[in-house]
Amino acid sequence: MTKPYYAVIFTSKRTSGDHGYDAMAQKMEDLARQQPGFLGFESARDEIGISVSYWESLQDIAHWKSNTDHLIAQEKGRTDWYAWYKVRICLVEREYGIDQ
Amino acid sequence: MTKPYYAVIFTSKRTSGDHGYDAMAQKMEDLARQQPGFLGFESARDEIGISVSYWESLQDIAHWKSNTDHLIAQEKGRTDWYAWYKVRICLVEREYGIDQ
Repeated sequence: MTKPYYAVIFTSKRTSGDHGYDAMAQKMEDLARQQPGFLGFESARDEIGISVSYWESLQDIAHWKSNTDHLIAQEKGRTDWYAWYKVRICLVEREYGIDQ
Repeated sequence: MTKPYYAVIFTSKRTSGDHGYDAMAQKMEDLARQQPGFLGFESARDEIGISVSYWESLQDIAHWKSNTDHLIAQEKGRTDWYAWYKVRICLVEREYGIDQ
């Protein structure tokens, strides 16, 4: 990815039971991928879940946060799906690694 | 956490087999927690692994990266444990959520 770009780190603890979570999570990932400025998405869950989405700008992140379907999902997240969660909006300053 | 602070996002795909990975991962987490500027650590793995460590400064991140035992683990990571990995060093600009 071409710097500068942004990472949104979403860390969460699920409540027990599905409550429509899996279907909505997939729908939100599909929808995020269609948004302007979307660069990538990675996710893993065992004891806790960590999802990271990557974006070209803070404006793109704000635009996705205010998407109507996403607002509905966010509300369900607060009321049904997560015991706790944390969102961190971060500027990626440097990156390195071994390619896939 | 008091801003500004930094997040190191470590995304990886493991090779098959343990090769001493689990023991070393725990040892490295324990050692990281003792480093100056360490603020926190979160990790999850299913298809891929995502670990995020939080630090007070870029200097603290550089200091931990150059720790002798950590350098040995990094070398084992490149040669034995990871099919690929990516490290992103990020400035946390904003955060919100529901507390644990």
